[in-house]
Amino acid sequence: MGEPSKLWEVVRDLISTATGRLKADLVISNGSLVDVYTGTIVDGVSVAVKGDRIAHVGKKVDHLIGSGTRVIDARGMYLVPGFIDGHVHIESSMLVPSSFAKAVLPHGTTAVFADPHEIANVAGLDGIRFMIEDSRGLPLKVYITVPSCVPASLPEFETCGASIGPDEVREVLGWERVVALGEVMNYPGVLSCDDRMIGEIVETLKAGRVVEGHYAARELEESLSAYAAAGITSCHESVRREEALEKLRRGMWVMIREGSAWHDLKEVIRVVTEHRVDTRRVVLVTDDRHPEDILEEGHVDHVVRRAIEEGVDPIKAIQMVTLNVAEHYGMSLDLGGIAPPRYADILVVEDLAKVRIRHVIACGKLVASDGRLLVDIRGVKVPERLVRTVRVGRRFSPKDFSIRAPVERGRVKAHVIKAIEASVETRHLLLDVEVEGYEVRTDPERDVAKVAVIERYTGRAGHSVGLVTGFGLRTGAIAMSVAHDSHNIVVVGVDEGDMALAVNRVVELNGGIVIAREGRIEAQVELPVAGLMSPEEPESVASRVRRLMEAWELIGRKMVSPFMTISLLPLSVLPELRITDKGLIDTVEFRKIPVIEDSKA
Amino acid sequence: MGEPSKLWEVVRDLISTATGRLKADLVISNGSLVDVYTGTIVDGVSVAVKGDRIAHVGKKVDHLIGSGTRVIDARGMYLVPGFIDGHVHIESSMLVPSSFAKAVLPHGTTAVFADPHEIANVAGLDGIRFMIEDSRGLPLKVYITVPSCVPASLPEFETCGASIGPDEVREVLGWERVVALGEVMNYPGVLSCDDRMIGEIVETLKAGRVVEGHYAARELEESLSAYAAAGITSCHESVRREEALEKLRRGMWVMIREGSAWHDLKEVIRVVTEHRVDTRRVVLVTDDRHPEDILEEGHVDHVVRRAIEEGVDPIKAIQMVTLNVAEHYGMSLDLGGIAPPRYADILVVEDLAKVRIRHVIACGKLVASDGRLLVDIRGVKVPERLVRTVRVGRRFSPKDFSIRAPVERGRVKAHVIKAIEASVETRHLLLDVEVEGYEVRTDPERDVAKVAVIERYTGRAGHSVGLVTGFGLRTGAIAMSVAHDSHNIVVVGVDEGDMALAVNRVVELNGGIVIAREGRIEAQVELPVAGLMSPEEPESVASRVRRLMEAWELIGRKMVSPFMTISLLPLSVLPELRITDKGLIDTVEFRKIPVIEDSKA
Repeated sequence: MGEPSKLWEVVRDLISTATGRLKADLVISNGSLVDVYTGTIVDGVSVAVKGDRIAHVGKKVDHLIGSGTRVIDARGMYLVPGFIDGHVHIESSMLVPSSFAKAVLPHGTTAVFADPHEIANVAGLDGIRFMIEDSRGLPLKVYITVPSCVPASLPEFETCGASIGPDEVREVLGWERVVALGEVMNYPGVLSCDDRMIGEIVETLKAGRVVEGHYAARELEESLSAYAAAGITSCHESVRREEALEKLRRGMWVMIREGSAWHDLKEVIRVVTEHRVDTRRVVLVTDDRHPEDILEEGHVDHVVRRAIEEGVDPIKAIQMVTLNVAEHYGMSLDLGGIAPPRYADILVVEDLAKVRIRHVIACGKLVASDGRLLVDIRGVKVPERLVRTVRVGRRFSPKDFSIRAPVERGRVKAHVIKAIEASVETRHLLLDVEVEGYEVRTDPERDVAKVAVIERYTGRAGHSVGLVTGFGLRTGAIAMSVAHDSHNIVVVGVDEGDMALAVNRVVELNGGIVIAREGRIEAQVELPVAGLMSPEEPESVASRVRRLMEAWELIGRKMVSPFMTISLLPLSVLPELRITDKGLIDTVEFRKIPVIEDSKA
Repeated sequence: MGEPSKLWEVVRDLISTATGRLKADLVISNGSLVDVYTGTIVDGVSVAVKGDRIAHVGKKVDHLIGSGTRVIDARGMYLVPGFIDGHVHIESSMLVPSSFAKAVLPHGTTAVFADPHEIANVAGLDGIRFMIEDSRGLPLKVYITVPSCVPASLPEFETCGASIGPDEVREVLGWERVVALGEVMNYPGVLSCDDRMIGEIVETLKAGRVVEGHYAARELEESLSAYAAAGITSCHESVRREEALEKLRRGMWVMIREGSAWHDLKEVIRVVTEHRVDTRRVVLVTDDRHPEDILEEGHVDHVVRRAIEEGVDPIKAIQMVTLNVAEHYGMSLDLGGIAPPRYADILVVEDLAKVRIRHVIACGKLVASDGRLLVDIRGVKVPERLVRTVRVGRRFSPKDFSIRAPVERGRVKAHVIKAIEASVETRHLLLDVEVEGYEVRTDPERDVAKVAVIERYTGRAGHSVGLVTGFGLRTGAIAMSVAHDSHNIVVVGVDEGDMALAVNRVVELNGGIVIAREGRIEAQVELPVAGLMSPEEPESVASRVRRLMEAWELIGRKMVSPFMTISLLPLSVLPELRITDKGLIDTVEFRKIPVIEDSKA
């Protein structure tokens, strides 16, 4: 299978099929069409497909059926356009694109707009190129947005693996399936007209492409206007419905997110169910979903179900993951509805409100039935460069995680990161911590653990150690090479020996997530591709993640997505206190601070 | 005033204005915003403008007002996005673009998507270039679609002034403000995969532009699918609501037309008021409106009023001429709503349901108040080549309009065109007509008149004469150089002397419409620009058209748009019987036929 067809290459075939001069390759007969254009259901509709696109939708198709035409009977079932994820980081599934496709296609996701922000932070354009190559020819159409904030932070705050600026944006926008500038997280840069940030936006606008947003600020007047004035037309960061409303009023598409860690839908969907706005610019997205959640709960189908549960009309909910997304990206002639000449991405659905999918047709092929994948999907060989991204150069030992104190024993005041469950934010606490032998000790009783970030790009393994609370760690440690956004190695633990053990194992694996307890490895997920993803089957990865969750409960408190929360501890652009390989960063004042409070200050 | 700004040129200014580092040029304060994105009205909203775009929309604007900021108080009034005409032939207004702008701006039209199909048939790319140049720097934004069917007919049926094919389409799509391929009228060419027709579509799709439709067939199954499969995404030819519904279901934008001659809205709007479809792909357009109708009834504002009268919610009706149009053309970041960074095209409206407009702001400037234009608008000097397009080379005399009969006197059977009031179609009649002295005579009593078409491009003045009924002509003749689509000279009359007189005057004027009666000129409208348009003030042209209407009633029966109906008599692609400079064309069988029935056949 090659790339999805360009319309101009196949327009004659489609016309000839619609008029009956050619026979259809596939006919789906006699379903109830969910017509996203009129927002109505039309009974007794058949669809004729030629190649990877729809040639005819109507009541009459018999004359288009030849001896080579496959016919799928949809009597008593609904015909729904394939679901589109308008904003997703494939890396969060821990699966490479080809493996991700195997996980999401049976759930009805037939196209995604993926921001390869994570792999780009590790491996720059090489990483983006891999995501494109590994998704070439899949029945899942993977469209790419160019990551706009690589690195997320300044070099003085953090060591990172790559850098993307206006020149790279211009180049990558010329690559196949690259359709937009990825989420502009650097809103202070937009508001201050930072040259590099505006430069990337200007290149995108000149290329006639869409600029994706990520407006995490809570200001809803001039700053939001300025952000919209930059030509940014979407945002998936609303957590309150008022935010969604104000973004809609500025002509932006509001993407309501229901990821593994972020459950924004329940609140934000009220902009639809209570304010009753025109929903054409409302989109449902996953952003980040873990492999086990995809397999168990679903992908876009899960978000649609959640919206319907919250009171959204099923047809409108379907529009939010089909037509609305396609219109946002200016691709509604290719995607988002069952009509000629769109790609033949069609779900045959038994129960609309429960989104029970019988068949999934993608690019004109039946790819899944009753939740089972029916086609053979193979990715590309992962380039050597992308499986050797964890360059630390030495083994770690317990003493690497010591924090020196100015007193021999007693208590000192320390700056401690407070992690908040199911939130991207942290709090900045000043706590009294125990000192013994001139070293700060972890304190499981009071939920004080150590956190360290180890640089993994230069081989020099520069690192810093700080304190964190909120995970309820009783024993052991967890280390991971998924550590936003630069993806150095982050480790959290109450035992320095286990911290070293976990970090060393992550290095040996060339990336992954490892839990160590009492001197042994309790669980691990290998993520050898850029230290972020696995090329293995979704089920294998998901089962390892499940074992990891079980192991987590042996060492820490039960919570929503502890791994995601840990992975965000180094994200030095979000409030209030973060840690990177260069030290503790006060992200309100944007300055480095020491762990132990300077009593002279 | 230059071209409208490109967003990337001004993005820094807009951001700096929204954040308050720069002051706004214009503030419209305290209106009730008609928010087309959410479909709601928001009270107490102010808008800050920088240059020709909106920088901020919100509750707080005081800090953006400086000593150089103009402030317009909108208290108690609505803020409505400027109206957009999604499909219009400016030539039908008989005004050049700069003069057309003077007529429509006070009615709230701030952007049009103009298909210069008429002037392109006369003068090819030179004609299109003139339309672009004469609209450069106007507060009315004139976007151009490349005429796709020039000539409309085959060379054996008609002599025409120009030809546009795939190469010309590719070239013109690169010109400023050219955004789409114009209405594809040649649906048989699409269905049969005619190389030239498909070639034009392919060039447009490759350029990432929109292909406009005109599907005049009544078939709503495979043919319509084939037409949509060609990538054609709009149609303004629906006259029954079922047609509109089926086009919507194929993912097309349905443009509901209310022109001077075509009153489709009353029936077609029922797709909205009765079928209650999602209206995002419903658009209201004028297509063709005469100057006196624009001045008296209005332009897009008139169509909006008509939609509201028929029961459409005012906000939805406004969406149909703002956001929906912008989305269709993929230009919603520039047009169609009051939000940053869109062009500051804003109507301050006193009465929403009656569309009573107080102020018109276009490109950030106050251009009209209370129906009066406030700005100086000047067009370009019309190129000499475009005012010398009527090349006939000789004077006509009564005998040029004789029709020879095979008998000296009595009656013969003749093929007669029956014109139908307010319809684009004609009927093909076979009538007994009077012969005297071997010549067919006109017969005012039985409403049989002569019609002739005179070729005006080569100077050889080839012409043909036929018979027509339906105009109730009692005396005199009318001649005009507006004669679709090739715009040769058409003349209808019952007196051959008056026919010659009228034709000769049209030639002397280098184009126009002339009524002659009893040996004298009764009324005339000079249309020297390509024989189609006048560079004069809208009021002058409109008053001459009114005098022409009065003169018409002296010679023919009172009817809707007689001039439009006459101008369509040569349009050899519509059923059933037409006349061109090459003779009578049976447009059902597509063959030339004689006027007098061949008794041997």
